[in-house]
Amino acid sequence: MNGAELLIRTAIGAGVKVCFANPGTTELPIVAALDRVPGIKAYLGLVEGVCTGAADGYGRMVDKPAMALLHLGPGFANGIANLHNARRAKSPVLNVIGDHATWHRDADPPLAMDIEGLARTVSGWWRTSKAALDIPADLADAVTSARLGQVATLIVPNDCQLAECDGHRMKELGRTFDPLEPNSIKTIASRLKTIRKVALMLGGRALRRPGLEDAARIQKSIECDLLAPTLPGYMERGPGLPNVERVPYFPERAVDRVSRYEAVLFAGAPEPVTFFGYPGVRSRILADDQEKIVLCTDRQDVVEALDYLADALGAPSVLTLGDRLLAKPNRPEIPAGELTAEKACLTLAALQPEDAIIVDESITTGLSYFLLPSPLPAHTVMNVSGGSIGQGMPCATGAAIACPERPVINLQADGSGLYTVQALWTQAREGLNITTLICSNRSYRILQMELSRSGIETNGPNARALTELTNPSIEWVKIAQGFGVPGATVSRAEDLARELSKALTEPGPHLIEMFLT
Amino acid sequence: MNGAELLIRTAIGAGVKVCFANPGTTELPIVAALDRVPGIKAYLGLVEGVCTGAADGYGRMVDKPAMALLHLGPGFANGIANLHNARRAKSPVLNVIGDHATWHRDADPPLAMDIEGLARTVSGWWRTSKAALDIPADLADAVTSARLGQVATLIVPNDCQLAECDGHRMKELGRTFDPLEPNSIKTIASRLKTIRKVALMLGGRALRRPGLEDAARIQKSIECDLLAPTLPGYMERGPGLPNVERVPYFPERAVDRVSRYEAVLFAGAPEPVTFFGYPGVRSRILADDQEKIVLCTDRQDVVEALDYLADALGAPSVLTLGDRLLAKPNRPEIPAGELTAEKACLTLAALQPEDAIIVDESITTGLSYFLLPSPLPAHTVMNVSGGSIGQGMPCATGAAIACPERPVINLQADGSGLYTVQALWTQAREGLNITTLICSNRSYRILQMELSRSGIETNGPNARALTELTNPSIEWVKIAQGFGVPGATVSRAEDLARELSKALTEPGPHLIEMFLT
Repeated sequence: MNGAELLIRTAIGAGVKVCFANPGTTELPIVAALDRVPGIKAYLGLVEGVCTGAADGYGRMVDKPAMALLHLGPGFANGIANLHNARRAKSPVLNVIGDHATWHRDADPPLAMDIEGLARTVSGWWRTSKAALDIPADLADAVTSARLGQVATLIVPNDCQLAECDGHRMKELGRTFDPLEPNSIKTIASRLKTIRKVALMLGGRALRRPGLEDAARIQKSIECDLLAPTLPGYMERGPGLPNVERVPYFPERAVDRVSRYEAVLFAGAPEPVTFFGYPGVRSRILADDQEKIVLCTDRQDVVEALDYLADALGAPSVLTLGDRLLAKPNRPEIPAGELTAEKACLTLAALQPEDAIIVDESITTGLSYFLLPSPLPAHTVMNVSGGSIGQGMPCATGAAIACPERPVINLQADGSGLYTVQALWTQAREGLNITTLICSNRSYRILQMELSRSGIETNGPNARALTELTNPSIEWVKIAQGFGVPGATVSRAEDLARELSKALTEPGPHLIEMFLT
Repeated sequence: MNGAELLIRTAIGAGVKVCFANPGTTELPIVAALDRVPGIKAYLGLVEGVCTGAADGYGRMVDKPAMALLHLGPGFANGIANLHNARRAKSPVLNVIGDHATWHRDADPPLAMDIEGLARTVSGWWRTSKAALDIPADLADAVTSARLGQVATLIVPNDCQLAECDGHRMKELGRTFDPLEPNSIKTIASRLKTIRKVALMLGGRALRRPGLEDAARIQKSIECDLLAPTLPGYMERGPGLPNVERVPYFPERAVDRVSRYEAVLFAGAPEPVTFFGYPGVRSRILADDQEKIVLCTDRQDVVEALDYLADALGAPSVLTLGDRLLAKPNRPEIPAGELTAEKACLTLAALQPEDAIIVDESITTGLSYFLLPSPLPAHTVMNVSGGSIGQGMPCATGAAIACPERPVINLQADGSGLYTVQALWTQAREGLNITTLICSNRSYRILQMELSRSGIETNGPNARALTELTNPSIEWVKIAQGFGVPGATVSRAEDLARELSKALTEPGPHLIEMFLT
């Protein structure tokens, strides 16, 4: 057995089941090992941003890491933007990067780069393996770290992959979470009982069903609203789950929304700050005199902490929860007429199947989707948590591979979708049940909105060249077909309803370009 | 005037004429300044790898930097792979990255990253502006550094862009090159006269016409062959220029090729090393007992040094050069029958117009193009110097913008082309005279070759999934059309000749997918 085979064997033992890859020469022993040691299925992405975004989407769905197998510094660099989104979404991702052989590095060959320098910008954990016999411990540490909701990056030199490693010892995964401090949570419970207007700000794993059920229990004991970050990485919604509001994107609305609370309790979410620094607007959404209480650290289990807090508050159990605060199913009607952003969202809401996974990188178009007053059938929503565009299509790809029995709908802004459009090919190759709805406004609309907010003129030739996606317009259906995905264009709500219904019925991926007025 | 306007004004003064951009909110004051202070034209790339690759291609053609305007850490990260190629090609590139406002950074907003941490992995120079009044000096230092043949990265926080800067002082560009040391070159000249078998290894600016003419003069004084790196960033060829051979890619052939020399003189090129570390093969192509002589440092002007060396050797002037060693024009015949890699190269060689720019990211397919025995009409060849794939289409885009009067032909591997296929849209929008020849072998052929070299079996399901570009095949013509570029497919040499002639005659970009057997 060589180091590469030991790596794959350890990864299988640690629960890794899939590998998203665009490997190069320095990873070829690992490519070979994927066949010699069966247990992990490999998926090719045509560019590394697809691989890391898919690993992120997979990690969000199953709460365990997939492996992203990447080539040296440049290949890793291509994947960093979506790893940044994974980091902000607290998604577990395991990167394995093949480096040059240790004895070759001093020669500074053409592809050599400072891989650790890149790794530290986006990883919660990173290491370069020193020897083949270290690989089991290195990989187990990486997976343990990833499971905390982090990007973990293991760099394995080519000679370590090739070295024979008789006498190796396997290593078990470590304990994922630090233990809770019960007294600290009891103190928080006592404090909460004395405050009238409280918001519970949920993030990370707290937005999965167990966390949301605990939050609903807490709502039975104290008067509190539930909030989530503006772009949560993973959030379950639907009947039987409490209503959770997202903090609005634009700072004035965000401040207005949260100013009503005396205190905010943070459970897996950071303190909300504005996306950008606007002159005259403070960074932090909450005022200094609003009390901020942090339930647990990032290294503790936020769901366990919520459960403990609910108990400490004397909350009823999940089983005895009444339904006053819980969402009930109800769908909007299918609208008619020329498509607008709002009608597109209504049509989606009217037709999305039970258990759909909604990957929302719609930027401006989807704003009204989340705000729909009526809860829809059970579904999961995933957003571009790090704000780094090009996340939607890869994330949808990884989610569909993680949950082949669930339909995936990717509500996708056109400008952002073009960043990693190559993901469509992986969707076609794997026959994934993904429907991509392109929100075709033919511009970087968010930039036009931000320009207008700043009072900057936007009609100069350079500003127009840099914010409009016209001349020529993108023909999405042709691009999709070129990658093997059937496509259609729609400009009326009725047509969208028809094409969406069809796409959701037929197996395999589909793309619908929605011309929005 | 605000900091952003001052930045643009300084850039114009420093000779910057174009800006390749995919900006975001933190760069919007610079976007506005591009219109308020006219003098730089902005080109939109649909993803940052297009922008940085285009800036590289532009820089290679004009030997002066274009500006790449990028958004925060994630946008910069998307551009790093092609900046890595620029770095290895010694291409001048100026990155300007808008960071969050300084007062907003501590809030750790979603898009925040360690931008300097990314910058140092790929830049020869980097700095974060501390105040608007520092911008003229910062930008002048950046351009001066870029002109050395480096990637220079200037990070400008949003509040520095917005700050009013009355009382600012402009700054002139610094001296680009360190002065030569004439005595050192005289010593080299004396030494060279005593050695029988010498190779002159040219790189960087030495492969432009003035450097090549000096090399031809040197060949008149001492017996020496001219070599270039395996993947030179920029190289002029054609009648009146001496023959230069590239060091072969595979190590055995490279060692075989250079073992005949007693000494190698390096003029702007690094010592040749193998691309990857192969077990049992040394990193360095040259043996320990082959003498290595370095003509000048990376901070000195290699062309001036070659000129000085030629004088010191008593070489004839360019004007009096005979033509024994100089290439004469001669084209191959157009071949017939089913297309192979070799026939594709012959057809290209038979038809390429005078002054063509050949962007060669053909990886395996183009091997025979460079080896053609007959020199072709004057042309420039540019390669993927850093080995980071996805360089061809962006580089062709930047080259065509730099030299609108010259036809650009991009000999493009399919796997590599898919990395940054979005560049086609910029080509269409700008009506660039680029003909893209897709070498469609529907695989990562180089990986299959490297797997086979290593004796690794390649027929397992994972290895096949990761090295084949089939199931489905990419339909390049549809993708090109989707981005606004007309396309055609060919599978016979005659058809290629017809389509290539047509593409070279019609204005604007074209794509021809060549099915290779």
